[in-house]
Amino acid sequence: MDSVVSLADKLTLIDEHWSPRIVATVNEQEVKLVKVLGEFVWHDHPDTDELFLVVRGTLHIDLPDGRRTLRAGEMYVVPRTVRHRPVADEECHILLIESAGTLNTGEHTDSALTSPATWL
Amino acid sequence: MDSVVSLADKLTLIDEHWSPRIVATVNEQEVKLVKVLGEFVWHDHPDTDELFLVVRGTLHIDLPDGRRTLRAGEMYVVPRTVRHRPVADEECHILLIESAGTLNTGEHTDSALTSPATWL
Repeated sequence: MDSVVSLADKLTLIDEHWSPRIVATVNEQEVKLVKVLGEFVWHDHPDTDELFLVVRGTLHIDLPDGRRTLRAGEMYVVPRTVRHRPVADEECHILLIESAGTLNTGEHTDSALTSPATWL
Repeated sequence: MDSVVSLADKLTLIDEHWSPRIVATVNEQEVKLVKVLGEFVWHDHPDTDELFLVVRGTLHIDLPDGRRTLRAGEMYVVPRTVRHRPVADEECHILLIESAGTLNTGEHTDSALTSPATWL
């Protein structure tokens, strides 16, 4: 991928919720865009931290010690092994950074929400 | 760092150009904010890719095969070993992702523009 990536342009191509799409890689990390709405499943990632940056809307991240709320232009890193549940009351657009190959539902490899990331 | 990071709030704390400040880490990568203006020095990073995401303004990245131009909400990854020179005609605010410990001027460890990144 040797081109300038417009987050807004890429987001217009996404028509599913909770389906992460890869838009770049940097040092074995994948940069993904996701549209989310509603409650995701509680899960964790044993081997990767996960950075959430909200591009549009509001995202809640439920954590064992309570809820964080991120608005557009705000980010939060969920450390590896920490259980978390993303929640969006209205559609929210997110940029994620995590190790290449990370499955969105963590240990729930056969959840209805499980969606292996593909390039956009 | 276990808190929500507002890019806008953090950027208000930066009062120097070309001085990257760390705001988060994810999987041994550092997420940095930088305000830039003018022409940087041509350099490369032998061991790390470098992701540029423009938060505000317009950034040119000169590369061996020509110039890329990024506006707010656009990103570009300069692969490791590729020589590049960031240029901003007006002040531009950037988010960078690269391996922890990366020096902004690459092999020029004693340039007047060399600025080891510190936490913001």
